[in-house]
Amino acid sequence: MNASADIGLIGLAVMGENLILNMEGKGFTVACYNRTVSKVDEFINGRGKGKKIIGCHSIQELASVLKRPRIVMMMVKAGQPVDDLIEQLLPVLEDGDIIIDGGNSLFEDTIRRTKYVESKGKLYIGTGVSGGEEGALLGPSLMPGGSPAAWLHVKPIFQAIAAKLDDGTPCCDWVGEGGAGHYVKMTHNGIEYGDMQLICEAYHIMKEGLSMTPDQMHQVFKEWNEGELKSYLIEITADILAKKDEDGQPLVDKILDTAGQKGTGKWTVISSQELGIPITLIAEAVYSRCVSAMKDQRVDASRHFPRPDPRFPGNKQQWIQDIRNALYASKIISYTQGYMLMRAAAQHYGWNLNYGGIAQIWRGGCIIRSVFLGQIKKAFDRKPDLSCLLLDSFFNKAVRRCVRSWRKVVSTAQRKGIPVPALSTALAFYDAYRSAWLPANLLQAQRDYFGAHMYERVDRPRGQFFHTNWTGRGGTTASGTYTV
Amino acid sequence: MNASADIGLIGLAVMGENLILNMEGKGFTVACYNRTVSKVDEFINGRGKGKKIIGCHSIQELASVLKRPRIVMMMVKAGQPVDDLIEQLLPVLEDGDIIIDGGNSLFEDTIRRTKYVESKGKLYIGTGVSGGEEGALLGPSLMPGGSPAAWLHVKPIFQAIAAKLDDGTPCCDWVGEGGAGHYVKMTHNGIEYGDMQLICEAYHIMKEGLSMTPDQMHQVFKEWNEGELKSYLIEITADILAKKDEDGQPLVDKILDTAGQKGTGKWTVISSQELGIPITLIAEAVYSRCVSAMKDQRVDASRHFPRPDPRFPGNKQQWIQDIRNALYASKIISYTQGYMLMRAAAQHYGWNLNYGGIAQIWRGGCIIRSVFLGQIKKAFDRKPDLSCLLLDSFFNKAVRRCVRSWRKVVSTAQRKGIPVPALSTALAFYDAYRSAWLPANLLQAQRDYFGAHMYERVDRPRGQFFHTNWTGRGGTTASGTYTV
Repeated sequence: MNASADIGLIGLAVMGENLILNMEGKGFTVACYNRTVSKVDEFINGRGKGKKIIGCHSIQELASVLKRPRIVMMMVKAGQPVDDLIEQLLPVLEDGDIIIDGGNSLFEDTIRRTKYVESKGKLYIGTGVSGGEEGALLGPSLMPGGSPAAWLHVKPIFQAIAAKLDDGTPCCDWVGEGGAGHYVKMTHNGIEYGDMQLICEAYHIMKEGLSMTPDQMHQVFKEWNEGELKSYLIEITADILAKKDEDGQPLVDKILDTAGQKGTGKWTVISSQELGIPITLIAEAVYSRCVSAMKDQRVDASRHFPRPDPRFPGNKQQWIQDIRNALYASKIISYTQGYMLMRAAAQHYGWNLNYGGIAQIWRGGCIIRSVFLGQIKKAFDRKPDLSCLLLDSFFNKAVRRCVRSWRKVVSTAQRKGIPVPALSTALAFYDAYRSAWLPANLLQAQRDYFGAHMYERVDRPRGQFFHTNWTGRGGTTASGTYTV
Repeated sequence: MNASADIGLIGLAVMGENLILNMEGKGFTVACYNRTVSKVDEFINGRGKGKKIIGCHSIQELASVLKRPRIVMMMVKAGQPVDDLIEQLLPVLEDGDIIIDGGNSLFEDTIRRTKYVESKGKLYIGTGVSGGEEGALLGPSLMPGGSPAAWLHVKPIFQAIAAKLDDGTPCCDWVGEGGAGHYVKMTHNGIEYGDMQLICEAYHIMKEGLSMTPDQMHQVFKEWNEGELKSYLIEITADILAKKDEDGQPLVDKILDTAGQKGTGKWTVISSQELGIPITLIAEAVYSRCVSAMKDQRVDASRHFPRPDPRFPGNKQQWIQDIRNALYASKIISYTQGYMLMRAAAQHYGWNLNYGGIAQIWRGGCIIRSVFLGQIKKAFDRKPDLSCLLLDSFFNKAVRRCVRSWRKVVSTAQRKGIPVPALSTALAFYDAYRSAWLPANLLQAQRDYFGAHMYERVDRPRGQFFHTNWTGRGGTTASGTYTV
């Protein structure tokens, strides 16, 4: 058989199949292989029938039908299966051939695999693929990173199949070296956790603080989807609130309030801790899912503690506007934190991240797609080395405009017993970040007192460290022996 | 030489030396060794002179002077040095001999090492040692875990050198199997981060909200140290606020507000993410240190955002009482979360943790020692299988008593622009935890909408999962292709 296929894809679960059909629809010839080879025949004789798709019954066969340099994309379960497959691929590939991992791999694995595959003379790409099964078929958001030399060959295929903005810009661009693609996908998912939590808190306040029905809230989210909050998640929230169960009652009220998670939010928080970057909103969002899962404990605890009257006093329409502002300002904080994290990761891992490009990639095709991301792109167009999103003129103005509403909503919710961990941590971060002075001087004094950790002084150059004998009891350290 | 030493200690930095002097003072004969052997002679002829301390110039010599079963305690840098030392020790030890790691090791390393050392026929203990250098000398808090069979032999020494409560109870008891000792020490440090952050937030409000001087705040912390908040950290805060610089001005005002960290707070948060336990207060405390470290960015940002008038309206004495209540309630939340974490870890790693005993261990000798921990011990005495500290009658009552002040302080601080991330996340957690219903139903609907993640229903048994075709556009999944 001639080497006629543009790309090979391994792993015929729904995501893999849909990516193949997407590629074929854009004019590419795709070879495919699956460990359980009967799946190959099923696909070729089913959804893939009559298309430029070549079914292969072995890795060797797959390699034989691919044009050079060969491009092989793996759509298999993250973890050991990816390593196993790389081991099977390496012997049948030639120098310069390209292996792509399109699964939800941990970025640290992708860093390791990129180095390993490159050491064998081949190229490697780890790419985030967002948009779910339908996105894979009709236009995903793609976040490729790895061996830069591979991009030239992969770009035509990836940009062809990616989601497109109205102006035709593909939601796919080169992200950076090594594990950058999977890192950015992980951060995307963390931000997705935050966006969803913010919407839930707004819903909570409207439902309990303003006694609104799902239909009324549907209307609000529909209106919000016309303006600066316009986004996929706001849109589907409007849809969800309108959806009726078979008995005609709002379906949302029938759903159990215990949220699950798949791990990428957790990874984002762990990475932020490793890098020392305060992504407080994503962390609160992940923890909120954990608290929601403690349903039995919550029901038990609800019997032991008083519940304040949750109703917000005053004008309902005004509150709705205030909640919208609070949500918007908090969202700006969340993306500010997410971008801080990517910046720190780029520095730590040595990646040249394309920050504006990342906003563009997320602009369509993925779960967090929004007009908001267009503003982030513009901010990086204005200042490519922007160190903090909050300091961009657009976002600075937006936060200043929203801050009064934000304080009102958060403080009232806290008085009324409505938990708003994401809205309130965002406000706390904002207030800390814009504070030239913070009380950490006392904390440094404590650390020096009990552990001789030393401190810097406001009236001496940075980098000069001082220790005080706080107790006057002598010695270089001063941890007391006091018991209480 | 006869085998006459009760215990051998390797690593003659200050912590190691002080532990040796502490042991010797309690009547034990201690052998010591250090890789740079000149340190051994210096110690023997210096601080160790004329005492029952045997200096050894090799690991073999150390092994030869120890009674059976040999007990060897390592006080070396965490990480590879511990593994290296274990490899050197194993050949010179006999079956049943005991290796102890007294460093700040990651609990996962201790799990691995316990298994490894046991597989070689020896016993292993990883122990938390808290109280700093002076604690090591005069009475540390000790948290040993590892091979249960080792405890019988180590107990007389450890309980003799540990800090003692007024009734003579030693601040040392067996914690649990494997890495339990280092896990509990890690949690201790996480809680320490939280306690310190809470104090900083109280200080911040008093300083900026109530315009109080360090001397005035010294007085407040001194009073607080007479009651339910009585603790080492409150005591040293009072000391710190009274301390004058050479020019007679309060020293605390001269200290730069950028806090450092040593990693155990970070480890605690990472573990909580792995286990899915919402220790939100510790996480905010760690992140707050990260924000404090962004000093230049903060100074820059302070020029771009308005600063609200921070002054709290109303009666100052009342506010001080309210702040105290808010701090106390938040502290209860932090320990509730810390105990949730230990409970989850015990279940995950298969440890039988001694919860009341842990409170007792922390009661004296360590940084978080307090009368508060006595109440936790009592709570576990009342109900050894207490699932949540907040549900204990004492803490339930305490929170109910404080909640009004707590809401006032947090909501006012958020209105006044004073960041109180720990106080406010504690309140959000409390309000979420005591809520039978949370808005995670909407979140589950979103996840089902875009990712077909399925949901449970309030009107169906748990474990039955449902999927809705939200858009009516058919297919098993429904991620839209909408771009904005």
